[in-house]
Amino acid sequence: MRDNNRLQELYEKFQAGDRLALARIISLVENRSEGFETILHNIFPSTGRAHRVGITGPPGAGKSTLTSHIAKMFRAAGNTIGIIAVDPTSPFTGGAILGDRIRMSDIGLDSGVFIRSMATRGSLGGLAVATNEVGDVLDAFGKNIVIMETVGVGQSELDIVAAAETTIVVLVPESGDGIQTMKAGLMEIADIFVINKADREGASQLAREVEAVLAMRESPGGWTIPVLLTMAVKAEGIKEVVEAIERHKEHLKSSRLLEAKRKDRIRKRIRDIVNQRIESLIWQNEDIKRLVDEYLADSGESPDTPYTLADMVIKRLGIE
Amino acid sequence: MRDNNRLQELYEKFQAGDRLALARIISLVENRSEGFETILHNIFPSTGRAHRVGITGPPGAGKSTLTSHIAKMFRAAGNTIGIIAVDPTSPFTGGAILGDRIRMSDIGLDSGVFIRSMATRGSLGGLAVATNEVGDVLDAFGKNIVIMETVGVGQSELDIVAAAETTIVVLVPESGDGIQTMKAGLMEIADIFVINKADREGASQLAREVEAVLAMRESPGGWTIPVLLTMAVKAEGIKEVVEAIERHKEHLKSSRLLEAKRKDRIRKRIRDIVNQRIESLIWQNEDIKRLVDEYLADSGESPDTPYTLADMVIKRLGIE
Repeated sequence: MRDNNRLQELYEKFQAGDRLALARIISLVENRSEGFETILHNIFPSTGRAHRVGITGPPGAGKSTLTSHIAKMFRAAGNTIGIIAVDPTSPFTGGAILGDRIRMSDIGLDSGVFIRSMATRGSLGGLAVATNEVGDVLDAFGKNIVIMETVGVGQSELDIVAAAETTIVVLVPESGDGIQTMKAGLMEIADIFVINKADREGASQLAREVEAVLAMRESPGGWTIPVLLTMAVKAEGIKEVVEAIERHKEHLKSSRLLEAKRKDRIRKRIRDIVNQRIESLIWQNEDIKRLVDEYLADSGESPDTPYTLADMVIKRLGIE
Repeated sequence: MRDNNRLQELYEKFQAGDRLALARIISLVENRSEGFETILHNIFPSTGRAHRVGITGPPGAGKSTLTSHIAKMFRAAGNTIGIIAVDPTSPFTGGAILGDRIRMSDIGLDSGVFIRSMATRGSLGGLAVATNEVGDVLDAFGKNIVIMETVGVGQSELDIVAAAETTIVVLVPESGDGIQTMKAGLMEIADIFVINKADREGASQLAREVEAVLAMRESPGGWTIPVLLTMAVKAEGIKEVVEAIERHKEHLKSSRLLEAKRKDRIRKRIRDIVNQRIESLIWQNEDIKRLVDEYLADSGESPDTPYTLADMVIKRLGIE
């Protein structure tokens, strides 16, 4: 039981710019602890000011190094930065990710930069929901650039970056058979392509192939998706990426797409909240629990299947 | 509008063992086409006979080659086999997967083996739900071994194999820093570990490390998780894997864990069906659509947030 006064105190410290309060509120949201929705409700009017950048790509593409340099350059221009580094739910890439986090730690010492690593495997409501809510928290805290970085390996991971305003897809020459590896999903979410490790063989070939595919598609809302070459470890090509983000942001504003994107995000948020609450209401209902338990107790002899049982549960709930 | 008579005819052909009807019903389920729940309801009493094997691992671990050899050996022992090869929702690995499917095609010529490739990115209800329902279809068709193979890269992909009765996690020496790469999630789902490409440097080292971690944990339900070495491309070590699957199946039966696992799966299925139906009921409700649209139309001035709006939606639905 979290005391309401303590929550209020935490919120006041957060509003006063206390970094520890920020970290605590992020944990509250990440862990779905009691009071997290109250906090999200309270901070909501202060959101919508940060520009949200999503960065994704295959493991080993150098996303964290790139993120670190992009953050530094935005910081140098007077911005404050929030970074959410989402560990993949996959257990296979743990080691590499850990290394990345350590590499990013030098910018973490700057008080204008707040880095949060998230690994919410199995969290109620899913990774994408929690990550976007943490984005709100950083936004409301006053960070004007929020970067969400994740490995593009699964549906939920791609959902995270798809919710950003500007999404960067990072590719490397060795990440596959060039154009063969490019399926529809990736093309749909990318606002900017970055070919990292540009000194390696095949980099300019890959860039040309991506450009060729892009040329065959209609540019969404009049935005021409740039394909940029970087060498993140040497901090080369970063300026062009930051400029492309700025240009994309201006494009979204002038074309009124920014407003549409934000409304879409809010609409999705409402759906997520309602779905989560309804689900917990249903499955905590004693009547319904009993119905399911009884069915499972004599399954086999029962003429019912999960499908007829679902009908019964819905009837019991009284939703037409 | 799918004609009820046509659905009935399809179902009768399916029951008579028609492979084309099987393929059509799988498509129906995968695409959530009209009538899919009726079919799933009808076949449900015929399910629960197949042993479901999940195979997962990082990209390039040789999962498809391994699956193919396991299927061949089970087939040689007189079993009939269904294989569901789930393409990752990630667009980064497209090329490699395609290659795997081609390699698997020789066993596809055997009429006792049915292979289905699934790539349901964005499908309503999610990949794991649809994959398990396709598992039901293969089970009801009379396949007594159903193998579900997927890259272990994201939450939804791991959910697929976690629903199997026997889950095999495939690792390769080069897949990371050995023990460093092993996070909790993987240990929790594995019933059998396979170290593939056992001729490569580091294979026995990796096996020892996995065994060391396993030794520190309590074995779930008295099952000792084996760590097996294979060279799938040379079909070496397959017999030991098949024997381990058989042993695990016997263990599940004798310890009554099989029944518990199947009940868990049915319970989860009921939840998934209800959640999906409720969600579509809510968001097709005109009243609720209007409520959300009105909020979004003057968002900014409105004192409401997505959180208060969610309260209003739930009140409107009349769920206590």
